[in-house]
Parts: sequence; C-alpha cells; structure tokens
Amino acid sequence: MADERVKEFLIEGRNAVIEAFRAGKTIDRLYILDGCKDGPVLTIKREASRHDTQIKYVAKERLDQLSETGKHQGVIAQAAAYEYAEVEDILQKAREKGEAPFVFLLDNIEDPHNLGAIIRTANLAGAHGVIIPKNRAVGLTATVARTSAGALNYTPVAKVTNLAKTIEDLKKEGMWFVCADMGGTTMYDLNLTGSIGLVIGNEGEGVGRLVKEKCDMVASIPMKGDIDSLNASVAAGVLAYEIVRQRMQAAMR
Amino acid sequence: MADERVKEFLIEGRNAVIEAFRAGKTIDRLYILDGCKDGPVLTIKREASRHDTQIKYVAKERLDQLSETGKHQGVIAQAAAYEYAEVEDILQKAREKGEAPFVFLLDNIEDPHNLGAIIRTANLAGAHGVIIPKNRAVGLTATVARTSAGALNYTPVAKVTNLAKTIEDLKKEGMWFVCADMGGTTMYDLNLTGSIGLVIGNEGEGVGRLVKEKCDMVASIPMKGDIDSLNASVAAGVLAYEIVRQRMQAAMR
Repeated sequence: MADERVKEFLIEGRNAVIEAFRAGKTIDRLYILDGCKDGPVLTIKREASRHDTQIKYVAKERLDQLSETGKHQGVIAQAAAYEYAEVEDILQKAREKGEAPFVFLLDNIEDPHNLGAIIRTANLAGAHGVIIPKNRAVGLTATVARTSAGALNYTPVAKVTNLAKTIEDLKKEGMWFVCADMGGTTMYDLNLTGSIGLVIGNEGEGVGRLVKEKCDMVASIPMKGDIDSLNASVAAGVLAYEIVRQRMQAAMR
Repeated sequence: MADERVKEFLIEGRNAVIEAFRAGKTIDRLYILDGCKDGPVLTIKREASRHDTQIKYVAKERLDQLSETGKHQGVIAQAAAYEYAEVEDILQKAREKGEAPFVFLLDNIEDPHNLGAIIRTANLAGAHGVIIPKNRAVGLTATVARTSAGALNYTPVAKVTNLAKTIEDLKKEGMWFVCADMGGTTMYDLNLTGSIGLVIGNEGEGVGRLVKEKCDMVASIPMKGDIDSLNASVAAGVLAYEIVRQRMQAAMR
C-alpha cells in the first residue's frame, strides 16, 4: 500500500541520536561539533565506536549548514532511511503482542511538531502504529523525527492513498473506528475497548466528511472553557489515554 | 506578587485576532495585508469597524517585518498589554464560578509552543488559571499568545517568584497539589477531586525537587511504549482531563 520512503535522513539533537543507536538504526555517518566533550556527546561516541560508525568532527558552521531543524545541539546523524511501514505491519505488530489492534489514523495533520508529538503519544499509549494519508499531510521529516523523541524508531507509520478506503478495509478485519469531533458523544460514555482506530482530524478543519462518515463513533472531549478546541496533539493524547484507561479497566474485570 | 507586564503586544494570525476582539481586548492598531478579502479577514474588518479600530493596509513585506512569529496569515493586531494576573485573581475566579479551585502550576516550561498549548488546555479543562515562575521559564510572548488560540484572553496567568512558596501558601487555603512524574501512583488510582493544583515539570528535567517535595501526590501516566516520556503539553492535557473526568463523576454522585 505504501511505497514512498525517505532516502536519506538526518537525525538531529543528542537524545534523538542516542535513541536511534539504541533502537538499532543504521547510522551511515555522524557529525559532531569539534571539541565537544560533555556527557551526552561521550555517550554518542561510545555508541558510534560500538557500531563502527564513522565520525566526522566539524565546525559549528558546517552543522548549521547541514541542519534542517536549526536545533542540532552539536550532533547530526545521517541515517538509513526511515521507511514507511505497511498497514499489514501494524496489524502484525498487534498479533505478535497478542493484543487487540490499537491504531492512530491522522486525517491531514499539517504541523510537523503535532505529527511528531502524536507519534510519541501513540508509542507511549501502546498503539501499534500510525496511518497517515499521502496527500497534503506532512510526512516523516527531520522535525517530525526529532519531535517524536525517538518514537519513530519503534512505532510503524504507514502512508495510504485513501484514508476512508483504509478504514473500510480495516472494518472488515473487525476494527471499530472512533473520530474526535465536536458534537459527538462525551468520550467517557463510549465503549472504546476492543480493536480500535482513533481518527484525529486536521488542525483547522477537523476530520474530513468522507472519513467521518466511515467512523462508527464520534467522541467529544468535554469543553469547559471559552475557546473552540484543543491543540491537535493534546486532543490526540487525551483521547488516546481515555482508550488506555478503558482498556486497563476491561483487563481488570 | 506579579508586577511584570508586556508593554506592547502583537497578536498574529486570523483566529487569534478574531478571538481578541471577541474577548473585548483593546486593539490599538490593526495591520491587514493589502487586497486580502477572504472570509476571516472580512470578519476581522467588521469587528474592527464595530470597535472603531484603525486599520492600516500594508504590503506583505511590512507584515513580515513586523511579525515576531513569522505566521501572521496577513493579519497583525497591536494590542494593549497582556497583563499578568495575581494568584488572588485566580482564586477569585473560582469563587465567582462557585467551583473548587483548579489551577495549573508550570515548573519552568521553556518552549513557548508548550506554554501556549498548556494555557489553551487549562482554559478548556475549566481550570481557573495558570501559575508560572519568574525565572528561566518562558513568558507571555507573541508565540505563546498565538499558540494559546485565544485562551490568554480568558485564562489568567500569574507569575510568582517562588513556586514552592506559592504552593505552601495555597495549601493553607485548603488546596491539594499533584505533580506529574514517573514512579508515582497511576493517575487513575488517585483521588483528584476537590481544590487541586496540577504541577507540570520542565520539558527535560521534570518537576524540580523543592517543588516536588511540596506536592501531596505524585501522579504517573501509564507508559506502555518504548520511549521515556510524553511531550509536556500532551502530558498536561492527559492529566488535566483525568481531573475533569473525576470531577464530572463526583458531581454525578
């Protein structure tokens, strides 16, 4: 289903680079600020020597020039591509863990910080993967990788042509879909256990009509304030953890 | 307690400017991209004429030059200062609503996007205000205002010299404090109803030792993944909505 991949990928910042090594990513080349000797950098050097990774010591100007995020913290790794996964890989991951599938579907998230934060949340909430559409939405850029705080190394992300069609296919496998939108049922009153796909909409426009029509449930987060809506990555977190809470409760029964 | 104020303040982006008008903010001057005629801009013009606000039509270059965020969307308002509130204003707001106080305390949030998203969450979760420390932490910049999506117009933010001291003072008024940290009690197992202060730590270091020692409870978000921690604004949202859930449940009893 997905055939795109990022051919060459920069991982920037100390934590992101350490995480990449620990997750077993192949680092093709490592750039470190010449003369930099603090703790995290020494850790990175140890990891590099353990993996026979070539280190280039360079001046700050060179790092600034290479950097895509402007936040390299003195370390940039050139890594083997982050390959997009297939939807089937995500289901396989759930099977391997012996768990009912829990998948995030993002309907055109445009801000790379939001995408990264949501992948990070998906990992920590125990979701098996994230599905994004091919058009318009942001892809797996360096900023996304950095904001995901290493989660991209563990949580598969699949890119599909048509999100509504993917939902239809997954329904045949027994999955239920809940989308986040105003005017739905308060999330605490929905049964969010079982095989579930959580659909999060675009920052400005919410979930698209065609996608929303495919969903089994519309969940609303209680809004007790004066403004319209939560940040997309915060809303994703709040809903994901309501799913976590209900799953934990169901497991105790 | 707080005496700092931002003397002149830019509000950038369409939603933020519309929200500011609707919240009754005094806009001193409004810059609009010359020739711009779409829906949101027409709404802004109507609001401006209703409030006798002077409009200056300018070229894109002028807006880019004025802009502090680089994301003005063709509209920049120069507003009366966002004044910091006093802690007492926050408690007063709770009294006026006849509600037990619900306050966010942020222990040195450094990223303006996180601060804005957390103020946005505080507003929507029904919190009465946000308390931030004077040192190190980011203040109410244009980026914070924009990321708060208008919440800064409604949710008072107080700046204090010593967060641990403020917690001590508020405990005397009958408030309980819960901080978010690893190794605490799972949040679902804590009683988070009543007068509560939710303490969120710094992005890298978490909650400081002195502040943590003052807290009555340490709450943990269940972590079911491979990486360390959620984004600070996502963690704040997940915890805030566990408080909302418990408050709603308590009100139904």
